[in-house]
Amino acid sequence: MKFFKVKTVEETFSLIDEMVGKSGQTEIRPIEEALHFVLAKSVTAAENVPAFDRSTVDGYAVRANDTYGSSESMPGFLTLRGEVRMGEAAALTVGFGEAVYVPTGGMMPPGSDSVIMIEHCEEVAGILNTYRQVAPAENVIKAGEDIREGEMLLEAGTWLRPQELGALAALGITEVEIYRKLKVGYLSSGDEIVPYQTQSLKAGQVRDINYLAITGTAREWHMDVMYGGIVRDDFEAFSKKAKELYDKVDCLILSGGSSVGAKDYTTEVIESLGAPGVFVHGIAIKPGKPTILAVADGKPIIGLPGHPASAMIIFRLFGERILKKLSGERLVKRPERIFARITKNIPSAPGRSDYIRVKLFEQDGEWWAEPIIGKSGLITTLVKSDGLVEIVSKKEGILQGEYVPVIASR
Amino acid sequence: MKFFKVKTVEETFSLIDEMVGKSGQTEIRPIEEALHFVLAKSVTAAENVPAFDRSTVDGYAVRANDTYGSSESMPGFLTLRGEVRMGEAAALTVGFGEAVYVPTGGMMPPGSDSVIMIEHCEEVAGILNTYRQVAPAENVIKAGEDIREGEMLLEAGTWLRPQELGALAALGITEVEIYRKLKVGYLSSGDEIVPYQTQSLKAGQVRDINYLAITGTAREWHMDVMYGGIVRDDFEAFSKKAKELYDKVDCLILSGGSSVGAKDYTTEVIESLGAPGVFVHGIAIKPGKPTILAVADGKPIIGLPGHPASAMIIFRLFGERILKKLSGERLVKRPERIFARITKNIPSAPGRSDYIRVKLFEQDGEWWAEPIIGKSGLITTLVKSDGLVEIVSKKEGILQGEYVPVIASR
Repeated sequence: MKFFKVKTVEETFSLIDEMVGKSGQTEIRPIEEALHFVLAKSVTAAENVPAFDRSTVDGYAVRANDTYGSSESMPGFLTLRGEVRMGEAAALTVGFGEAVYVPTGGMMPPGSDSVIMIEHCEEVAGILNTYRQVAPAENVIKAGEDIREGEMLLEAGTWLRPQELGALAALGITEVEIYRKLKVGYLSSGDEIVPYQTQSLKAGQVRDINYLAITGTAREWHMDVMYGGIVRDDFEAFSKKAKELYDKVDCLILSGGSSVGAKDYTTEVIESLGAPGVFVHGIAIKPGKPTILAVADGKPIIGLPGHPASAMIIFRLFGERILKKLSGERLVKRPERIFARITKNIPSAPGRSDYIRVKLFEQDGEWWAEPIIGKSGLITTLVKSDGLVEIVSKKEGILQGEYVPVIASR
Repeated sequence: MKFFKVKTVEETFSLIDEMVGKSGQTEIRPIEEALHFVLAKSVTAAENVPAFDRSTVDGYAVRANDTYGSSESMPGFLTLRGEVRMGEAAALTVGFGEAVYVPTGGMMPPGSDSVIMIEHCEEVAGILNTYRQVAPAENVIKAGEDIREGEMLLEAGTWLRPQELGALAALGITEVEIYRKLKVGYLSSGDEIVPYQTQSLKAGQVRDINYLAITGTAREWHMDVMYGGIVRDDFEAFSKKAKELYDKVDCLILSGGSSVGAKDYTTEVIESLGAPGVFVHGIAIKPGKPTILAVADGKPIIGLPGHPASAMIIFRLFGERILKKLSGERLVKRPERIFARITKNIPSAPGRSDYIRVKLFEQDGEWWAEPIIGKSGLITTLVKSDGLVEIVSKKEGILQGEYVPVIASR
């Protein structure tokens, strides 16, 4: 039996980064079905985007030199040679003193280096009066200005957003190698827990709330879910079911069974699944102290506290980090916090991180965060809340009116 | 032919709220498949959650009165009657001077009103020494404390997050009436646009980047997409294809064709689809000025600018508002902006709203926003950016070091 010291939130994040690697299995997918997957292989551009110099406006392709000195009072005069048609090669050449009409996105004709906007000139019987001068490259996107041939466009580990798919499409790339979707197993334990579909509860029974709340969160993170059902508080049954589910998934989530008391064999069950086993057993956090984190043969196991609000907050904080690392996503530090002013004084024990559920509202152009009072066993505290205010472990509380960072929920 | 005046961003939002209603079609779905749908019918609780008083800790159910005056130096003594088992009715009654063991989540035995934590007492030969006093209801969740019978739990128009599903499960609700998923039609136009799968581009051709970028964004918002392909710049062909797609979808998105020049029949095509037709034709925004918004017989139509970055920014700002209203979602104002300091002076014309693509980085504990320089035709400006800095129309720019709101992209 290992002995564990409660870890701070900061230590827990460091341990996760150290202990959890990526699952590593990849597959090839068409880019139309690759949204929110993680790129497994970097993508290098095989061609320039755009492939040719393009006009960014409706106007006339000219030699910038020929417009120098043009103004409203002293217009320049150019010979209009014709026009470029969209989607076709620019056949006409722009010579000294000449102009060719080019629409937005059209190909720049050879000899031209800039475009004068249609609003800044006037055509009179084949002669173009220019009322402004343009600089070389003005109103032009140069070939390769968006993406340059040979440039690394996207690095392995990139979470594919719509704009990344757009950039892949720009290169004519139709398929990418991505890390396959993770499968998360979820197992509830507790003699009092019954399937949520149960219509008439017997005295002492409660429905499996966490199943919907936790697996819904995993689905939000673009993961598949496998439900292992509900096991009784019995070592043999729990151990057998946990092992069965563990074998089929990339990450195992156990709900309930991690508080002190008759249920401390959860640790034993987890340790039996493989090495190195449990690396966090208790976190200096409120709510959610009785959290267990483990890795067995490369697969993470998350033992959540049983109280619904605690379970969701712990999963949101540590489960996301674990699953993102496992998914192969390159961890890019992005601010995910908005700021609001707290409506009440909130004390906090130093050395412990507190996460306060809050409702946000706007008053006189400022955002305020109103704490939702309620025990961590109440799921409705999360239904009523818009996010979590974080009081980091070194702070001893926050004062009414103070600006606080809020982790917003969607 | 109607005449249009360019609208400000604020006017555009007001017009959207006025012109766009909800599509209104509903269906019944199991709650396990209802994540990110919008609730069509309010849900009222038919029972209490929890159904009985529960302990929130491992400890002993007592009458609070019996513990008054207990302390480390002067413990109280109670007769231990037995224990409550998880998931079963509490059979034993707690009388005067008595205690019954109850695990976390267990049912409170009749007669008891509070729980003393296991850490604060000691059992010696059937007698419980109590080292602390407890108050009535301490460490207890009362029946109905989470959800009260008859209370409205969720209002119609609620976007279902994992915690909402958890709360529904708590009540044993297995199905909900939701607004069905929206179907968004996307049609590209332009003689230069070719399918993104095209391997060898001819001179003057570009691939359909916006298709992936825009429909990916709609998918992110939990919508289905129907692709109408690419039409040539030809009134008859464009009109026919637009009508065909419009008939099959809840909202039609047209890409390209909304800038001045040979393409101004886009307005005519849109107007032919139904009344009241176009309500925004040009917005005082950069990038994205040539935007068209319309409603035809209750279906919104969005005419996006052709430049990829403009199209995505416009769709993110106005498309989301339009589609959320159409989906039946109750618009709840939530702050979606984080704050960062801008690294450069940025001028802006008063009366026009500017959206600056930025990359975020952390330095000395602060977030900084570095503008991504590049024309709105460049998709990679969005690949490189983490969000948009908004310069509202009444501002004349922002100064280096100023704190600015950033609309973060995921």
